[in-house]
Amino acid sequence: MATASQSPKPSPERIFDVLTAFQNSAALKTAIELDIFTAIAEGADSANAIAERVDASERGVRILCDYLTIQGLLAKGDDCYALTQESAIFLDRRSPGYMGTVAGFLVSERSKKQFDLLTEAVRRGGTVAAQGDNTKPNDELWVSFARSMAPLTTGSAAFIAELIGVKEHMPCKVLDVAAGHGMFGITIAKENPNAQIVALDWAPVLQVARENAKHAGVSSQVTFRPGSAFDTEFGDGYDAVLLTNIFHHFDPPACEKLMRRVHAALKPAGRAITLEFVPNEDRVTPPLAAGFSLIMLAATDSGDAYTFSQYEKMFANAGFRRSTLHPVPDMPQQVLVSEK
Amino acid sequence: MATASQSPKPSPERIFDVLTAFQNSAALKTAIELDIFTAIAEGADSANAIAERVDASERGVRILCDYLTIQGLLAKGDDCYALTQESAIFLDRRSPGYMGTVAGFLVSERSKKQFDLLTEAVRRGGTVAAQGDNTKPNDELWVSFARSMAPLTTGSAAFIAELIGVKEHMPCKVLDVAAGHGMFGITIAKENPNAQIVALDWAPVLQVARENAKHAGVSSQVTFRPGSAFDTEFGDGYDAVLLTNIFHHFDPPACEKLMRRVHAALKPAGRAITLEFVPNEDRVTPPLAAGFSLIMLAATDSGDAYTFSQYEKMFANAGFRRSTLHPVPDMPQQVLVSEK
Repeated sequence: MATASQSPKPSPERIFDVLTAFQNSAALKTAIELDIFTAIAEGADSANAIAERVDASERGVRILCDYLTIQGLLAKGDDCYALTQESAIFLDRRSPGYMGTVAGFLVSERSKKQFDLLTEAVRRGGTVAAQGDNTKPNDELWVSFARSMAPLTTGSAAFIAELIGVKEHMPCKVLDVAAGHGMFGITIAKENPNAQIVALDWAPVLQVARENAKHAGVSSQVTFRPGSAFDTEFGDGYDAVLLTNIFHHFDPPACEKLMRRVHAALKPAGRAITLEFVPNEDRVTPPLAAGFSLIMLAATDSGDAYTFSQYEKMFANAGFRRSTLHPVPDMPQQVLVSEK
Repeated sequence: MATASQSPKPSPERIFDVLTAFQNSAALKTAIELDIFTAIAEGADSANAIAERVDASERGVRILCDYLTIQGLLAKGDDCYALTQESAIFLDRRSPGYMGTVAGFLVSERSKKQFDLLTEAVRRGGTVAAQGDNTKPNDELWVSFARSMAPLTTGSAAFIAELIGVKEHMPCKVLDVAAGHGMFGITIAKENPNAQIVALDWAPVLQVARENAKHAGVSSQVTFRPGSAFDTEFGDGYDAVLLTNIFHHFDPPACEKLMRRVHAALKPAGRAITLEFVPNEDRVTPPLAAGFSLIMLAATDSGDAYTFSQYEKMFANAGFRRSTLHPVPDMPQQVLVSEK
């Protein structure tokens, strides 16, 4: 929303804009909590009608919906509001693409607190929040992640399933490390009835994956292995090992250690499939992947968003002969395929 | 930083971007607290050199400076950082345009708390924070405002001084209502040695204006009148009454009530000078002025960002024969000139 960059004369607008950006997060979180987008999708289009539907004040709804319009999340004309293409797909609770649940994880009290302490984290070089070592269990955090964040995986889970060749329906054995909601393995199981998935995570988190597998009708294809990715027995003979959103929590030695265990668990010619935020080598593009690094600074002891050359080196050190990078279509993440 | 709008296919990137926008505010606040911009201006350009200068970790500084680059607040090349034109003017502590102090007010614990409670504010139609009635004193808040926000007034104070004709050096009597830091009246006093300013605000706030007047060398031209804008005796015979950033705190009846008092205090042909965030009639453009409405919802009982037609009506009801609108160059605010 900053217009300063287009102005010929420098203006403090962009700085004002960045300093007040926390209000944007609060506004969208509030709109999701009140289910404003669903109300509009169901036909309430004036502030008055929306307010009645969501049990809020007309004045509050008018100001909030104007703000969402400024953010590009609603359209407005003749004092009536409408969903944008994006908000219809992702913020209407009745849409299969609904992702409103992610607000609970991304804008949690815990997350805001970590950023309230950012100055100290920059001083120290790592989080000053209670627990920043993600090799240790943190059930409340990861159950919340598993319950909230599954909607963001749809596109990348389908992309990974295709990458590992599910359409051929060949028997295959897949280990899903730090499975969380389990949706990456479950998507493979749904598309390939001959795939067998082993989902590994802390026991309370696996309960969420178990529910999701049941809901997807693939319980018979998924087994569950509770424990740490760093010392639980993986088993062996896997065609593929999935490592989705895990490496960014750790420093390079821990990443290498994990990847050596993965190497040992794969059958010859097996592949490790890594989903990550991978910034370019300049570390400042593209914005979402590069910016993810700050979240790791605020939330972990030593996590980071690693570049492809950093991953290539870590994975080669762990014994992999080659890694290739595959952008996930229409998503800010990338997949690394590493061959044993 | 959202790229979704340029994408042919809808993506959740913009939604992710808005939900994580609170991190942008935290990053800039931290950089200001650590005085990163001044360190770079003074010649430290690598993460290592900056870290040493600001007494922080290299890793933390590297991640923070990359993030500021993504936000357009730094430039980066060959692992070295440089200020942008904007950050050199507004964020280097040695610059006359330095505005880092505003972070303390805009991203305060109080302000973040108000937005943590936004859902309840939308339900109620006004703040649920402790005090939302700004007709009552709130010394801690307004002293903090007066100490933090003066740098944002430079452009608009000069514009207002010019509007009321300071260059002619004619004797003139000016009332500065809710003077805060006092800089609007002080700027007039500095440019017109024949101007007499009466600064009105709560007594502890006037202490800040008193210091600023002394620092500007115009103490002999400024008198101080402690109390509420709604019931303290204004005096009369004023050529101009300044109403800067005050109306947005109140509902229209309170604005009209205040403006009737202003009308009575002006001499014939005197002018009321209002500085405000004035959204267009659609209430969703321009972004900063229109978005200001949400801050008033979160922070006050019944304040708002009013459109020109709303001000025109309130001021006409208060007896003013004509109001005209004047955009402040390179700033998101506008000035209304209302003739008695």
